[in-house]
Amino acid sequence: MTTHEADRIRYRPARDELAYTFGGRMPVVHVRSGDVLEVFTEDCFGGRVRGPADLPSQVCQMPYLNPVSGPFFVEDAEPGDTLAVHIMSIEPAREWGVSATFPHFGALTSTSHTATLQPALQERVWMYGIDRKAGTVRFQATETDHSVDLPLAPMIGTIGVAPAAFEARATIVPDIHGGNLDTPLMQAGTTVYLGVNVHGALLALGDGHARQGDGEACGVGVEIATVTTLAVEVVKGVSTGWPRLETDTAIASVGCARPLEDAYRVAHTDLVGWASEHTGMDTLDTYQLVSQAGRAPVGNVCDPNYTVLASVDTAALPGWSPAYGGVHARLRQHATRSR
Amino acid sequence: MTTHEADRIRYRPARDELAYTFGGRMPVVHVRSGDVLEVFTEDCFGGRVRGPADLPSQVCQMPYLNPVSGPFFVEDAEPGDTLAVHIMSIEPAREWGVSATFPHFGALTSTSHTATLQPALQERVWMYGIDRKAGTVRFQATETDHSVDLPLAPMIGTIGVAPAAFEARATIVPDIHGGNLDTPLMQAGTTVYLGVNVHGALLALGDGHARQGDGEACGVGVEIATVTTLAVEVVKGVSTGWPRLETDTAIASVGCARPLEDAYRVAHTDLVGWASEHTGMDTLDTYQLVSQAGRAPVGNVCDPNYTVLASVDTAALPGWSPAYGGVHARLRQHATRSR
Amino acid sequence: MTTHEADRIRYRPARDELAYTFGGRMPVVHVRSGDVLEVFTEDCFGGRVRGPADLPSQVCQMPYLNPVSGPFFVEDAEPGDTLAVHIMSIEPAREWGVSATFPHFGALTSTSHTATLQPALQERVWMYGIDRKAGTVRFQATETDHSVDLPLAPMIGTIGVAPAAFEARATIVPDIHGGNLDTPLMQAGTTVYLGVNVHGALLALGDGHARQGDGEACGVGVEIATVTTLAVEVVKGVSTGWPRLETDTAIASVGCARPLEDAYRVAHTDLVGWASEHTGMDTLDTYQLVSQAGRAPVGNVCDPNYTVLASVDTAALPGWSPAYGGVHARLRQHATRSR
Amino acid sequence: MTTHEADRIRYRPARDELAYTFGGRMPVVHVRSGDVLEVFTEDCFGGRVRGPADLPSQVCQMPYLNPVSGPFFVEDAEPGDTLAVHIMSIEPAREWGVSATFPHFGALTSTSHTATLQPALQERVWMYGIDRKAGTVRFQATETDHSVDLPLAPMIGTIGVAPAAFEARATIVPDIHGGNLDTPLMQAGTTVYLGVNVHGALLALGDGHARQGDGEACGVGVEIATVTTLAVEVVKGVSTGWPRLETDTAIASVGCARPLEDAYRVAHTDLVGWASEHTGMDTLDTYQLVSQAGRAPVGNVCDPNYTVLASVDTAALPGWSPAYGGVHARLRQHATRSR
Repeated sequence: MTTHEADRIRYRPARDELAYTFGGRMPVVHVRSGDVLEVFTEDCFGGRVRGPADLPSQVCQMPYLNPVSGPFFVEDAEPGDTLAVHIMSIEPAREWGVSATFPHFGALTSTSHTATLQPALQERVWMYGIDRKAGTVRFQATETDHSVDLPLAPMIGTIGVAPAAFEARATIVPDIHGGNLDTPLMQAGTTVYLGVNVHGALLALGDGHARQGDGEACGVGVEIATVTTLAVEVVKGVSTGWPRLETDTAIASVGCARPLEDAYRVAHTDLVGWASEHTGMDTLDTYQLVSQAGRAPVGNVCDPNYTVLASVDTAALPGWSPAYGGVHARLRQHATRSR
Repeated sequence: MTTHEADRIRYRPARDELAYTFGGRMPVVHVRSGDVLEVFTEDCFGGRVRGPADLPSQVCQMPYLNPVSGPFFVEDAEPGDTLAVHIMSIEPAREWGVSATFPHFGALTSTSHTATLQPALQERVWMYGIDRKAGTVRFQATETDHSVDLPLAPMIGTIGVAPAAFEARATIVPDIHGGNLDTPLMQAGTTVYLGVNVHGALLALGDGHARQGDGEACGVGVEIATVTTLAVEVVKGVSTGWPRLETDTAIASVGCARPLEDAYRVAHTDLVGWASEHTGMDTLDTYQLVSQAGRAPVGNVCDPNYTVLASVDTAALPGWSPAYGGVHARLRQHATRSR
Repeated sequence: MTTHEADRIRYRPARDELAYTFGGRMPVVHVRSGDVLEVFTEDCFGGRVRGPADLPSQVCQMPYLNPVSGPFFVEDAEPGDTLAVHIMSIEPAREWGVSATFPHFGALTSTSHTATLQPALQERVWMYGIDRKAGTVRFQATETDHSVDLPLAPMIGTIGVAPAAFEARATIVPDIHGGNLDTPLMQAGTTVYLGVNVHGALLALGDGHARQGDGEACGVGVEIATVTTLAVEVVKGVSTGWPRLETDTAIASVGCARPLEDAYRVAHTDLVGWASEHTGMDTLDTYQLVSQAGRAPVGNVCDPNYTVLASVDTAALPGWSPAYGGVHARLRQHATRSR
Repeated sequence: MTTHEADRIRYRPARDELAYTFGGRMPVVHVRSGDVLEVFTEDCFGGRVRGPADLPSQVCQMPYLNPVSGPFFVEDAEPGDTLAVHIMSIEPAREWGVSATFPHFGALTSTSHTATLQPALQERVWMYGIDRKAGTVRFQATETDHSVDLPLAPMIGTIGVAPAAFEARATIVPDIHGGNLDTPLMQAGTTVYLGVNVHGALLALGDGHARQGDGEACGVGVEIATVTTLAVEVVKGVSTGWPRLETDTAIASVGCARPLEDAYRVAHTDLVGWASEHTGMDTLDTYQLVSQAGRAPVGNVCDPNYTVLASVDTAALPGWSPAYGGVHARLRQHATRSR
């Protein structure tokens, strides 16, 4: 369901509108630069896991996992441009979140690719209570009485555009087109830059998490449906390779690869190039500075590609000039006005 | 161009019929179980690299690399079936083959994913003379007078079906649907088993090599156009995960993954399961036997996923009963009659 | 030079006392549980790189790199015990620090093991000014005028004990015995737990950094000589596998391995076990909680093994009982009194 | 027990003479260039696993696994030289061999480093009958009646010298000093070249296998005690990095690393350099030729480092001049005379 209002476009997918790939799908809504888009996103289980008895491998059917809302056709986006997507807010749509162990999926189990002859870990479901006022997520152990409140820190796990080279990729995959990046930095206040590969870019998103730890060790965050509000802008004639993030204080490049060190290499090589270009320092000077000032938050160590970010505070970059013509600041201000 | 003759279907793609993905394409020809299919395949450069001055990065345009011929719609193939493809012959279509170093591609260079700040190796082209009578491929050094004849050993680098989960994958990628496996075992006399994911299977192939070393270290084999003859048969109601090969004396499972040990794990886990099923030995006994009798030929260490095979002689498998109902022997005989 | 004073033992190695292995060395000083030890540590270049013209590969000689001070024989430490080492303070010993690119070493270059045919990056030295009052480290670009002050955050890069299994390991190596862990969490206020493998434990340390980024991308931090003050205590009859850290608010397990995901797996598996043991939650409940509450700071992506930590706040662990009998709190208090 | 006879030195270690490290040990025998050395080697379990009830984790005690015989002090070997060791013969010393699954060790299980929360595979022992006349090894399943004869193909799993940099390494480790390479090419007729790191080289060997598959998937070959006969020669003033092998028809470089692709890169980079030096072809021409003519036999995918070889027939190397001054041919002839 799409509604076009004065200040925003609201989109809520019917169940059969949910998408399971980036690429290979017709757009559901057309938007243009400057539009604010309010999107309902389902959780990674399509909302089907609602209690301990709803084992994901039983109530979900492959490949109908990790649905995204979209794709959105961005009218002036052409291959070679960059799509800037500013995340204005991510609101949990329900009072609960859910996590699980999924057979042969996660960092501390053998998997379909790190294949062993061992049986899978037990499949189990954890329900989390979300208290939006208190800003907490409640963990409750399944076998004992232990419980604890953790900070609510909503994020979008999966966001991306149609891939290049005529590919269509399952939404479970993170790669150069975005997708299942699973990084906590994809939160309100962040702008993500995605290279446009096809006319219209075909933006889609989903897989909200109330929070997740670094690497999403068990393979599943605190999965939630969300209402997520975005402002989009096309940066014409500026291309982007790997996804990049910008906040008010920092920039980050995203690398997706296996083994994990290659994700680190991709992200850091991109960040060094980006920082070098916008400071005027030579490559090795920038490499040196990033080596001492950089952070490397781990996104996921469970998806088909692993995700690591390379990040640095812009205050640590002497001579830094705003990236992408200052689009982050502009969208940030826009977002403030629209709220 | 397609011709239907008494004993075979001949297909030669026009240039604009070449495909660059598995999945996401309409079929070019319909075939059915038992058909013999003679296919012209272009080389991985689309035939554009014909001498030392034709640098691939200049004469080829991304993503128009590694074209395949097809896809072929196999009429009775349904998801959950297995497509058996017997390679009857692979004939080099020209008197020459070509190899190259391609910037930031290959095993002994940094790449787009094993990203470093180092400049690329020099891009260079090597032309090989093919002597079909002598059965040789002539290597000629570019900087010195050194030359040597190597055995001609034609193989198909890329063969596969449409992927599952609504995906479309670039032909450069090897994965569970097949694709750019780049293994020398994909030669005349081999039957490959591919799990069917979509109605019609959508088989395609290309990327012939006059020969290649284990791992295709520089990223490029001795690339040739070919005329390749196949016999296809659908094995109904038997599913297959990773690609499997069968010859008159051996079976092999294919694993595609990064890091390379995961390709090894995938292939060996599959082979242990396959051998266990057809011998009646328990899993650990089979694991033990494969550990002592198995081979692990390395396919590629340069593509987006690396490829390793796990192989064992059927003579080393006590109680071995023919795989897939003996389809290999049947197609082999069929092939002999059709020649 | 060793002096035994009322409240502490001071040790300053002569140049020829510096050690280049863990294991395989005679102890330089004997200490016992409760002792405070003030140690001078040289920088990773043995103090030989003092300006841009001092290229490490020229002024240093393999294997005389990354010297450590020690080993210290801890009198009551026996195999099967745990050595708790509380870092009371790390003081830079000079007004400057130094970093460099070293040929074929670092994360964004091919290396001796990620071997390629490409030439090395340029070897270059960066000198950093250290302002202890301001608490800053000054980066100065070498090719342009760019400079920036970064926070001073002293840490010990290399600390460990003699390995098990009669091994002696070069100090450049991080592994289960500790060694070149290169994690910023090895700072004042942290207690590190090391499993004792030989009588006397044979503790040694060195390789101070004024600061480093996550992963130490270029392979070298802001290298400094330090005066580091430690309090040691043997935890009898409690064994430890991989190194563990404790601060006033968090615990962390260290994993050292290649590929990087194995370091992540080692660290997280250990943390799950540790947290499960001290909370009484079952393994899967703990796995779930760590998956949502855990952090995974990257130590190094350049050394012979890579280092990742798995960390969680003790406040996020319901029912947490102090680790190792509360030795961290005890040493912390001890440290406060000794200051 | 050592006996010096006219044509050879015979050495049979007492149980307490067995060594568990390379480096950190006093030599047991002195030899010199040209000597023939006949060595008894125990199996990797120290001969303690003799039937299905002898579970390795119970009858063996860490770290007393994988014993080697030696070290042998080679009198004229100095750092910077190369030690050439020609394997004249490997005779099984008993009528049986043994294999096993060992908890959390092997390629198709989680391990200490590819750590997961899954329980270990069942520990089980397989006994093999060795028929030296028939040249066979008999596999017998443990759960069913299946059995099969495989070719007897004796090899030495572990051979090496003292490491550089004052290190001592457990015999389970393969690395640049040799050690637990676990490659079937270490067979009679092969010459191995090892770089000398310490005065006397300190050669040691053990861990015979009656045969093994590529990668030694379950972590254990068909383990045997052997009587192995070697001829040694020091190649003065020629240094060697990674271990190299030479047979009558081929050369090979050994790479040991994780992930497995790094072992491939190390081996192939070394082979390209070696072949380039001895043919006079430039690096890229050699890279190209090895890419088409090379083989990459997988050694082990279970040890602390994985092992891959890069190999090429000398007949495929135009202008090839004998390596190391023709020492292989000389020792080969010597071996023939001594037999």
